[in-house]
Amino acid sequence: MIELREALTLLDGEIRRLPKETVELSFAHQRYLADDATSDVDVPPHRKSLVDGYAVCSADFDGKDISLEVIDEVVAGGWPRTGIGRGQAIRIMTGAAVPTGADAVVMVEQTVTTDDGRVILRGDEVKPMQNLMEKATIMHQGQVVVPSGQWLDAATIGLLAEIGHGQVAVSKRPTVSLVTTGNELVAPSEKPGPGQIRNSNAPMLATSVHEAGARLIGQRHAVDEPDSLREAIADGLSGDVLVLSGGVSAGVLDLVPGELKQQGVQKIFHRVSLKPGKPIWFGVLDTGSHRCLVFGLPGNPVSSLVCFHLFVRRAIHGLMGGSSEFPACESYPLATAFHHRGNRPTWWPARVIRTEGGLSQVEPLEWRGSGDLRALAFAEGWIGFSPGTKSHEAGTQVDFIRR
Amino acid sequence: MIELREALTLLDGEIRRLPKETVELSFAHQRYLADDATSDVDVPPHRKSLVDGYAVCSADFDGKDISLEVIDEVVAGGWPRTGIGRGQAIRIMTGAAVPTGADAVVMVEQTVTTDDGRVILRGDEVKPMQNLMEKATIMHQGQVVVPSGQWLDAATIGLLAEIGHGQVAVSKRPTVSLVTTGNELVAPSEKPGPGQIRNSNAPMLATSVHEAGARLIGQRHAVDEPDSLREAIADGLSGDVLVLSGGVSAGVLDLVPGELKQQGVQKIFHRVSLKPGKPIWFGVLDTGSHRCLVFGLPGNPVSSLVCFHLFVRRAIHGLMGGSSEFPACESYPLATAFHHRGNRPTWWPARVIRTEGGLSQVEPLEWRGSGDLRALAFAEGWIGFSPGTKSHEAGTQVDFIRR
Repeated sequence: MIELREALTLLDGEIRRLPKETVELSFAHQRYLADDATSDVDVPPHRKSLVDGYAVCSADFDGKDISLEVIDEVVAGGWPRTGIGRGQAIRIMTGAAVPTGADAVVMVEQTVTTDDGRVILRGDEVKPMQNLMEKATIMHQGQVVVPSGQWLDAATIGLLAEIGHGQVAVSKRPTVSLVTTGNELVAPSEKPGPGQIRNSNAPMLATSVHEAGARLIGQRHAVDEPDSLREAIADGLSGDVLVLSGGVSAGVLDLVPGELKQQGVQKIFHRVSLKPGKPIWFGVLDTGSHRCLVFGLPGNPVSSLVCFHLFVRRAIHGLMGGSSEFPACESYPLATAFHHRGNRPTWWPARVIRTEGGLSQVEPLEWRGSGDLRALAFAEGWIGFSPGTKSHEAGTQVDFIRR
Repeated sequence: MIELREALTLLDGEIRRLPKETVELSFAHQRYLADDATSDVDVPPHRKSLVDGYAVCSADFDGKDISLEVIDEVVAGGWPRTGIGRGQAIRIMTGAAVPTGADAVVMVEQTVTTDDGRVILRGDEVKPMQNLMEKATIMHQGQVVVPSGQWLDAATIGLLAEIGHGQVAVSKRPTVSLVTTGNELVAPSEKPGPGQIRNSNAPMLATSVHEAGARLIGQRHAVDEPDSLREAIADGLSGDVLVLSGGVSAGVLDLVPGELKQQGVQKIFHRVSLKPGKPIWFGVLDTGSHRCLVFGLPGNPVSSLVCFHLFVRRAIHGLMGGSSEFPACESYPLATAFHHRGNRPTWWPARVIRTEGGLSQVEPLEWRGSGDLRALAFAEGWIGFSPGTKSHEAGTQVDFIRR
């Protein structure tokens, strides 16, 4: 049995980023950028006004009220038809380009227009560059704006559009096959008989694959017999990732590790000091021309979900080019005192609550261990407790992994 | 101009949950459950063993070492073929059903097997119900386990499978049309000329619609002319939600509110005390047989993204049957001192960092206002600052909305 940190390091060592492909920007959602993206424009593209008002020459102002000739107007998104000279002003809208000759903008609220096409400005001090933003203040042409490895969400996709990337290079989405095992499992629509339970792993892990951003290419159930298992594994190894659930504990029917070995999958680790999730098995098939990461998750739904989150999701993101720091651990004060018992590091279902004082805290949920999927459905993540029996006082700072 | 809280209340008042439909469990992901889901099974379905060991009768134990006849074995997922009497034991695996007559399990580590099919158990006190979990401890048949309105993620889908819901009722996914407006916009693949900028709103808001869990049924760009806008709006009103960007400020080319009125859309509010996002427009078309919520977002990408998150996303979740408390506000200490100026409540881009001491804090990003989409791409959400000029010390507790 190895420690979680060691297991994650071993896993990271087996991840090879998938090849790149170029896709339309709108299809790049929930993937990682594969190349640095530079801007082909300056932002803002011109010296721009930050307010509605009048573009003026600051040298015209000497503290006294002043009357200027209004020679033109620039609407939002418009472009100045002319520059200004001394004694002149141009009406300008927020965001518009400041005309040449102007080095300041006076807010419209501080002005009075007259019938003869002039504007009277108060004699307050007008400073150069007042109420305007210089060209290229935010980004400049040629600058790397979005680095390789950046996760692509709505905001980043908007940014890439702004700087001229209608298409982007991203790593391919991993293909994942799912095999649930176990004689005792029946479909969710069937009524379990004595000793039977429903196969909740199949829809739960399929959903987890979608949530992680991978493509589910196959899903089947195998009974605990060598032939059934062999066929399911052979099919499943054709993708980038094979996820099995069940059959990895030490029982007589736990045939998965043996079958995987038979089919050339090299074991990297088996059993991690983790609760729930200890029986996790991980190995790699590498034929030279094809590589598949293989995860044998515990059959228990709670354990399989925790292991999916800690290991499989990490692998999927790694194959897509994401950082291996994922999942990010946050830290919160405990909302209530908590007595923890256990000889392994434990991931306890919890949710974030806000106290009357306004502080965000994490609250461990009532949870009856690895048979209790109910608590997980209402959890936002897990608190990580160290091994050993210990009473944690309310307010103690604890690690929290968001689901 | 109204306050954000008032605007959200007005918005909530216009949301009518969409009709229900029944879908396969695997397709219910990222939707809200429409009916309470009861369990048709007990969990656990039987009195089960929590350890690998021997099922025994606690009355056999009086503090002295004892030898019991091992009459059978129950494997994981197996069902006992027989009960036990006094002086007997059955080998049992974790999770298996405890045979009748047994009221305790002794861990295998505390036992010694003998060659004649017997087991010797240490004379430690053995208490009734030790190392087993009673039937229905976690859930019982007929119990409402997942309430209506629950968000369906992988864990909840697993739970629904466990309790017998192979299909579930969910509200329909809202259909959304998207219309970007503005003469100055060019496609991301084109090079902007003087006064032009790229249309980053189109891919950004389309991605936001997907992220929010709605179905994008139409997307087009209209120039700032009545005919172009009229046609785009008429098409867009056929869905459950119409999102426009641009054309809602006070400029001469801001034709959107007028065109919406012409087509029977009733204004609910226009302009909210919010930075960025003040020009937001919201109204409703209700023909009796069809209802469409219409959002006029500011044309500026930063403002439109903030408004999408605060208003459109809320509406989409509301139409799907989600709670109106969304988005949930968390609270974190400020990582650095921050001086905030502004006459409106401001949502400032920020990210969650972890200090050396292990505390999670929020760090305001360098941000140059509503023209700066770059900061948002690297933000995890927004800090909410109250109006007014104020210096906030590092460590001050602030509101944070996760994106």
